[in-house]
Amino acid sequence: MGSSSDWPTMRAAAEVLREFEVPFEARVVSAHRTPDLMFAYAETALERGLRAIIAGAGGAAHLPGMLAAKTTVPVLGVPVESRALHGQDSLLSIVQMPKGVPVATFAIGAAGAANAALFAVAMLAATDEVLGQRLAEFRRRQSESVLAMRLEPLE
Amino acid sequence: MGSSSDWPTMRAAAEVLREFEVPFEARVVSAHRTPDLMFAYAETALERGLRAIIAGAGGAAHLPGMLAAKTTVPVLGVPVESRALHGQDSLLSIVQMPKGVPVATFAIGAAGAANAALFAVAMLAATDEVLGQRLAEFRRRQSESVLAMRLEPLE
Amino acid sequence: MGSSSDWPTMRAAAEVLREFEVPFEARVVSAHRTPDLMFAYAETALERGLRAIIAGAGGAAHLPGMLAAKTTVPVLGVPVESRALHGQDSLLSIVQMPKGVPVATFAIGAAGAANAALFAVAMLAATDEVLGQRLAEFRRRQSESVLAMRLEPLE
Amino acid sequence: MGSSSDWPTMRAAAEVLREFEVPFEARVVSAHRTPDLMFAYAETALERGLRAIIAGAGGAAHLPGMLAAKTTVPVLGVPVESRALHGQDSLLSIVQMPKGVPVATFAIGAAGAANAALFAVAMLAATDEVLGQRLAEFRRRQSESVLAMRLEPLE
Amino acid sequence: MGSSSDWPTMRAAAEVLREFEVPFEARVVSAHRTPDLMFAYAETALERGLRAIIAGAGGAAHLPGMLAAKTTVPVLGVPVESRALHGQDSLLSIVQMPKGVPVATFAIGAAGAANAALFAVAMLAATDEVLGQRLAEFRRRQSESVLAMRLEPLE
Amino acid sequence: MGSSSDWPTMRAAAEVLREFEVPFEARVVSAHRTPDLMFAYAETALERGLRAIIAGAGGAAHLPGMLAAKTTVPVLGVPVESRALHGQDSLLSIVQMPKGVPVATFAIGAAGAANAALFAVAMLAATDEVLGQRLAEFRRRQSESVLAMRLEPLE
Amino acid sequence: MGSSSDWPTMRAAAEVLREFEVPFEARVVSAHRTPDLMFAYAETALERGLRAIIAGAGGAAHLPGMLAAKTTVPVLGVPVESRALHGQDSLLSIVQMPKGVPVATFAIGAAGAANAALFAVAMLAATDEVLGQRLAEFRRRQSESVLAMRLEPLE
Amino acid sequence: MGSSSDWPTMRAAAEVLREFEVPFEARVVSAHRTPDLMFAYAETALERGLRAIIAGAGGAAHLPGMLAAKTTVPVLGVPVESRALHGQDSLLSIVQMPKGVPVATFAIGAAGAANAALFAVAMLAATDEVLGQRLAEFRRRQSESVLAMRLEPLE
Repeated sequence: MGSSSDWPTMRAAAEVLREFEVPFEARVVSAHRTPDLMFAYAETALERGLRAIIAGAGGAAHLPGMLAAKTTVPVLGVPVESRALHGQDSLLSIVQMPKGVPVATFAIGAAGAANAALFAVAMLAATDEVLGQRLAEFRRRQSESVLAMRLEPLE
Repeated sequence: MGSSSDWPTMRAAAEVLREFEVPFEARVVSAHRTPDLMFAYAETALERGLRAIIAGAGGAAHLPGMLAAKTTVPVLGVPVESRALHGQDSLLSIVQMPKGVPVATFAIGAAGAANAALFAVAMLAATDEVLGQRLAEFRRRQSESVLAMRLEPLE
Repeated sequence: MGSSSDWPTMRAAAEVLREFEVPFEARVVSAHRTPDLMFAYAETALERGLRAIIAGAGGAAHLPGMLAAKTTVPVLGVPVESRALHGQDSLLSIVQMPKGVPVATFAIGAAGAANAALFAVAMLAATDEVLGQRLAEFRRRQSESVLAMRLEPLE
Repeated sequence: MGSSSDWPTMRAAAEVLREFEVPFEARVVSAHRTPDLMFAYAETALERGLRAIIAGAGGAAHLPGMLAAKTTVPVLGVPVESRALHGQDSLLSIVQMPKGVPVATFAIGAAGAANAALFAVAMLAATDEVLGQRLAEFRRRQSESVLAMRLEPLE
Repeated sequence: MGSSSDWPTMRAAAEVLREFEVPFEARVVSAHRTPDLMFAYAETALERGLRAIIAGAGGAAHLPGMLAAKTTVPVLGVPVESRALHGQDSLLSIVQMPKGVPVATFAIGAAGAANAALFAVAMLAATDEVLGQRLAEFRRRQSESVLAMRLEPLE
Repeated sequence: MGSSSDWPTMRAAAEVLREFEVPFEARVVSAHRTPDLMFAYAETALERGLRAIIAGAGGAAHLPGMLAAKTTVPVLGVPVESRALHGQDSLLSIVQMPKGVPVATFAIGAAGAANAALFAVAMLAATDEVLGQRLAEFRRRQSESVLAMRLEPLE
Repeated sequence: MGSSSDWPTMRAAAEVLREFEVPFEARVVSAHRTPDLMFAYAETALERGLRAIIAGAGGAAHLPGMLAAKTTVPVLGVPVESRALHGQDSLLSIVQMPKGVPVATFAIGAAGAANAALFAVAMLAATDEVLGQRLAEFRRRQSESVLAMRLEPLE
Repeated sequence: MGSSSDWPTMRAAAEVLREFEVPFEARVVSAHRTPDLMFAYAETALERGLRAIIAGAGGAAHLPGMLAAKTTVPVLGVPVESRALHGQDSLLSIVQMPKGVPVATFAIGAAGAANAALFAVAMLAATDEVLGQRLAEFRRRQSESVLAMRLEPLE
């Protein structure tokens, strides 16, 4: 993520990955304030064996797209809710990538961060049967939790 | 895709997959007009061995999200440009998924379709070395084509 | 509705229906998390004698449209106010349905929920004289309450 | 509709109604330019036996909401695409009605007009078995037309 | 105004008019809930000698436009800030009037209400010299208050 | 207006004024390119006897607001449709004036220009009986033209 | 800035300039309420030796553009967050200047104000080596502060 | 600029610079497709003596912000009009930079490109008297061209 202020949003991704027992690292790498670190991070991602990079950023959110420009490891972008424009700027800055350099984009905010992690799990599940079972189980429990919802009665 | 009228957009994805020699099928499956087919398609996707589903739709674009609701195969959503709102409705309908059911979303229109396919290639490249080499080569040629661009001189 | 978190919005519909003594059921049915239940619910709606379905959802709000895809019972959609985009995503996801599968859409939030219920009452009133009288009476009292409004004087 | 210039949009509704053999009248009634006619039209709608009013308007689209203010006959609003803002103004002017006076709103443009008519058919089908069969048949043929769609092959 | 809930916004207009000693009446007249009263109000406005009508409304804000449809007395519209869309719906519903029936529109919220009143004063000042002097004086004092502004020093 | 390129829009105002036989001048005065002329124009407006200024501008449309800052003559603003943003920028730049300096704003484009002129006529009609009669007559004919509208029959 | 109410935003610019030891003045000059002062300020800016003007304003934000119309000293515009539209109006009013009169625009709110000051520093650094070193040092420390960020651990 | 397809927009900047006899280079440097070239370009900008970088890009327009992240030479950003969203995405991606790394942003499209060049001229004019005279002369001629505008008469 581009700043520690994005952590309240992005920890939703970390929590999903931990729940699925998928190893991950959580790092602050700023496209604008630490561009060289960002490039180095992206350049070594493939050889370090990273299977996906979940990148969250807000406002003129360049981090996901610039990482994607420097690696062929799949980049998953999460638009962090910005102050004035509520993440509309973040969303457009991440999703409207030009042809040739894709960023998979998810919803604005913590729901998007959690979903990016779930998507990464689904990617890995293609070659990891245990993960696939956990994902199916997660979906099953999710359905059950909806079925169990009770509505507060009208007075 | 939800209609054959989406094909001018979505064929950009097909062309990328063909270029990378990734086998694929191109199908019209409408969330609203053939909901049972859509559910059947999603339900059998995993067992049929599909590794990703690229779903393009416009307006109240429910196809990507509903496929994602019915399968754990990664779903890649492409907002097709709509007439009145130019794809802003398509984009929000696809990207703003609730926590628990992710759709990886790409740019509005043909650039997004091509990028969804490139992203699928990158996913597959994790376990397919040849595809990884093609992707790296694609990126290299893409850089070269930019370097070779010439500007029309001022009069 | 898609989640019990939509209930603070959707109970405005329930309260109107109770006020008009129209029998109804309030259910949580999630398009994304319980898709099979949703399909079953829609498929049996006609034979169960439902005369209208009021469906509220937020964000990528697919519930109203997918119910409408599976039944010819009139579906009334209520865009629930979403966190980042304040229901603009919900509104477009519900109202911009493609030709062939209509969803009658109402205002964002609780006002829209109440109006969906009033609209359902108006539909039923076509063949239920008592309901028509109640509706006329409701309108009359509504006018009176406006006429009775008093403004706090300037200091 | 508010002007004969809305007819290219609204005729999509007329065509659906004719296809379903539902009797209807197509009238120009302007909220702003013939307000008295509009009020008279709404006031007599119930006694004339109208079962629904489909009202299309663009820009500051007040026709649907004002008809709804003057009758309890269900009003179905169609946002006509406006020049500068492409119907975003029409949509908000129609859908954002205050609590107490509902307008069922459909998509911007001709698709919305057709859907308003289909929704009216669905309303009437509740007490008209033949119409219900036609609607089911319409849906079935619609599904088939999607299944029959062929994609132009890649070169 | 359309509801007593608009009074916190619209009282800014009343305060300006009182400050300028312009006689006025403050009334709740709802386009949607008291349409007949609204028409009667507009129809008699000219003969009652009203020189301007300041109409505030929110959401699908039809009050200013419908008053304008029924009278040639100048109508000044004030978009009241709405809950979900912050007055964007109110603004478009008021300002985007079709050719032939003008509504003079002012800013969203209390600033717009005050400005509508100041505009009314300016209109009346054309034939009321005292009012013109008060307006010039108001402007002069307003400039002075800006010149007198002091900034809190940096720590 | 700010440029001769605004004339295709603003001539709709001139045509209305000519139709009503209201004397007017049509001038190009640019806030950004001829600021001194703009100030001089505004400063002398009152003493020259101007009763209203209709100011059209596009993009960062500062002309109406700056004229209003320099005169107490009523300023009527017309947002000219801009290329990229279709007049959304023009509208907000004109209508969102701060408390204290009002600009009466009309719809984007030629409809707004015509309406600004009609509004000016209505202002003048307060003290000009002939003009009031012409305005009433204009409205009457406008209603008749709507009543005379014929719809092209369905095939 | 146009009002002392903009100071909480604009002081971020003042703090940056003070940190870089760049002399500056902080003034309230309103385009709409003190237009003559604004013109005088702009007209004398060049001869007074000002090297840049940082102008913040909200809503129909005319201050930056009008200063730019009256001087060739570079004008840096800061959109102040407005109440209803969160600065979207301010941004468009400042950035969408017509060809011929540029305003360099920065982000909405305090971040934009700070960046306008940093941009002014960068401009001055072209001919002030000490300032260039301070700017390089600022960037270096900024990178370090990102590198030093620590994330709160998951529970 | 990021692609030769941006040249029709960006040549407006080149034409201004040529008119003012300011030496410049026009280069295609893509943030996403030639990231290393972009970094090298930015890293050497200061030592090569560049006084400003005018960067145009569309969609998820990362070029201006990433150049700014890698150099302290002033970066002037031009949002190129994008297909679906007409440059709204480009504008937000460029202007909403985080605190610490400024990009001076100009209007969407060719007007913005020309203005970026005029702004660069104004920056240079601070230490180049001849350029300052040319700029003053440019402004004077610009005013004259407005004064010379003639309006096509009404028929």
